[in-house]
Amino acid sequence: MIKTRFYDFIKSLQDTITTTLENLDGTTTFKEDQWNREEGGGGFTRVIENGAVFEKGGVNISEVYGPLAPAMQAYFKVGDVDFYATGLSLVIHPVNPQVPTVHANFRYFEMYDKSGEVVDSWFGGGLDLTPYYLYKEDAIHFHQVCKTVCNRHEVADYAIFKKKCDEYFHNSHRGEARGIGGLFYDYCKASDEHTMEDWLSFQMDMATHFLEAYVPIVEKRKELSYTPAQRDWQEIRRGRYVEFNLVHDKGTLFGLKTNGRIESILMSLPAHVQWRYDHHPEPDSPEEQMLEVLKNPKDWV
Amino acid sequence: MIKTRFYDFIKSLQDTITTTLENLDGTTTFKEDQWNREEGGGGFTRVIENGAVFEKGGVNISEVYGPLAPAMQAYFKVGDVDFYATGLSLVIHPVNPQVPTVHANFRYFEMYDKSGEVVDSWFGGGLDLTPYYLYKEDAIHFHQVCKTVCNRHEVADYAIFKKKCDEYFHNSHRGEARGIGGLFYDYCKASDEHTMEDWLSFQMDMATHFLEAYVPIVEKRKELSYTPAQRDWQEIRRGRYVEFNLVHDKGTLFGLKTNGRIESILMSLPAHVQWRYDHHPEPDSPEEQMLEVLKNPKDWV
Repeated sequence: MIKTRFYDFIKSLQDTITTTLENLDGTTTFKEDQWNREEGGGGFTRVIENGAVFEKGGVNISEVYGPLAPAMQAYFKVGDVDFYATGLSLVIHPVNPQVPTVHANFRYFEMYDKSGEVVDSWFGGGLDLTPYYLYKEDAIHFHQVCKTVCNRHEVADYAIFKKKCDEYFHNSHRGEARGIGGLFYDYCKASDEHTMEDWLSFQMDMATHFLEAYVPIVEKRKELSYTPAQRDWQEIRRGRYVEFNLVHDKGTLFGLKTNGRIESILMSLPAHVQWRYDHHPEPDSPEEQMLEVLKNPKDWV
Repeated sequence: MIKTRFYDFIKSLQDTITTTLENLDGTTTFKEDQWNREEGGGGFTRVIENGAVFEKGGVNISEVYGPLAPAMQAYFKVGDVDFYATGLSLVIHPVNPQVPTVHANFRYFEMYDKSGEVVDSWFGGGLDLTPYYLYKEDAIHFHQVCKTVCNRHEVADYAIFKKKCDEYFHNSHRGEARGIGGLFYDYCKASDEHTMEDWLSFQMDMATHFLEAYVPIVEKRKELSYTPAQRDWQEIRRGRYVEFNLVHDKGTLFGLKTNGRIESILMSLPAHVQWRYDHHPEPDSPEEQMLEVLKNPKDWV
C-alpha cells in the first residue's frame, strides 16, 4: 500500500536527515518526543536547540487518522468522511545569519467513505529557502537541485511548482516573499496520464534530495563571520517568518484551530526574534539587496 | 457631533499619555508619523523605542472613513455602506520583566446609508494588563480603577466587561489568557435606557483613567532588579503575546487583510521575543505561579 510505503520511507528519512544535521552541527543532538493523538495516530517530533550551527529546528513525522474534523470537512468541501494523513515536516533556523533558514514538507493524504473505501488520495509538499543575505550561487544551487529532480519525473513541472511556491510563501501584508522560494505542490493525484506510483516516486526522490539542496549551502556559509548588526537583521527577518507562519500558513492555522499538537506545530518558530517599528535597511546595503529580491521574486535556473 | 467631540478628546489624550510616559521613561521620546489613508482619513502613530523603562510601545490615533470594504461588509453583515471610525490604541512593552505590558483601545464607529444618514453607531474598547510576574496588588489596583470608573456610569457593567476581556484575550491554542485581563466592551449603542451621550461619557472617563490604572504599577516596579533568566521568561511570554495578536486578534487580522497601515498595526509587537520548544517553568517557581493564574483567570476585586 502506498501509505505504508510512504510512511516507512519518511520514518527512515527522518533518521537520515537528523543524523546528517547533527554531524553538521557537531555540538548537540536532536531530542525526540513521541506523541499520540487522542482521535487516532501520533508522531515523532525531533527538535534541536542551541547548537553551534543550528539555533533551533525540528524534523517531525506524523501519521494521523480518524474522522475528518468538521472544520476540515468544510475546507475540503466533503461530508462526514474518515482520513489518513502522514508526512515529514522540517524547519531549520541556523545561528549564523549567513546561513539560510530552510523549510520542507512531504505529505500524503487519503480519504475514505464509511465503508472504508478510499475515495480520494493525494501527495503534497515542497521545500523553500529563506536566506538573510543573498548569495546568488546558493539560490541557484537550491533551485537547481529542485529542477533536476523534477526533470526526471514526468509528473513534476519545475516551472509550475516554483511559481506556486512564490505565490504561497508570500507575506501579502508586506508585499514580500518569505524567502527565495523552491517548490510547492499539492493535490497531486492520479490522472489519465499518471498514477499514484508516479507521484510517490517523485515525492520520494525530491524528499531524498532535500539534503543535497541544503547541506552544501550550510557547509559553505557556517564558518563565515558576522556582526551584531547582521544578527539583528536576521532576527528582524525572522519576525517576518513568524508573521507568515502565524498569519498566512494554512497548515499552522489548521493545526492551531483543530487541536493539533501545539509544540510540534510551533517548533517552526525561530528562537530569537525582533520587531522594530518601520524598519528599513540602508540604501544599497546587502540587506536592501536581499529585500529587493524578496519584493521581486526571480527565476534562478 | 459625537464623532468630533470624541476625536478631539483622543487627540488631546494622546498628548497627555505620551508626555506622561516620556516623563516616566526619562531617556527618550515618542516619534510621530503622520499617515494618510488613500480611501479617506489617516492617523498619527507615535512610537517609543529603546527607552530606559519602555523597550517598545506605540500610542496611535486614527480617523478613517469612506466606503466600507467588502470584507468588512461581510463581517458586519451589512450592504454597501459608508463608515467612519476613530480611536486611540496603545501597547507598551517595558524593558523590565517586573513591569507589565499594557494594551488599551478606545474607539467609535459610525455607518451611513448612501444619502449620508447615520444608520448605526457604537463605542468599543477596553484595557488589559499582561504581567510577566504576578504582583497581586498590581492586578487588584488595575482592576479596581476599571471597576471604580464603571461604577459611576449606569451604562457600564464591570463584571460583564471583565468577563468579556477574559474571553477575548485568550490564546485558545494554549489554553491560556494573554494576561490578567481588565475590560473589553464593543457594540455599545443607544437603547431605550441609555443614550450615546451616556456611552461617550463612560468612554472618555475610562480612557482618561488609563494612566491612573497603569502608571503607579510602572513606578512601583521599574527600579526592581531582574536576572537574565527572568528576562528570558519575559521574552518567551512575549512570544505568546505575538501569537495572540497574529492568530486571534480581530483588529490586527482585519488590518492586515484590508490594506491597513502595517507599521501602525504591528507596532503592538514586542522588540525582543523568544520561542523555545515545549517550554515549562520550574514547579512552584514564580513563573509557574504566573502561568497558573493565566490558565485560571481570577476575580481581582
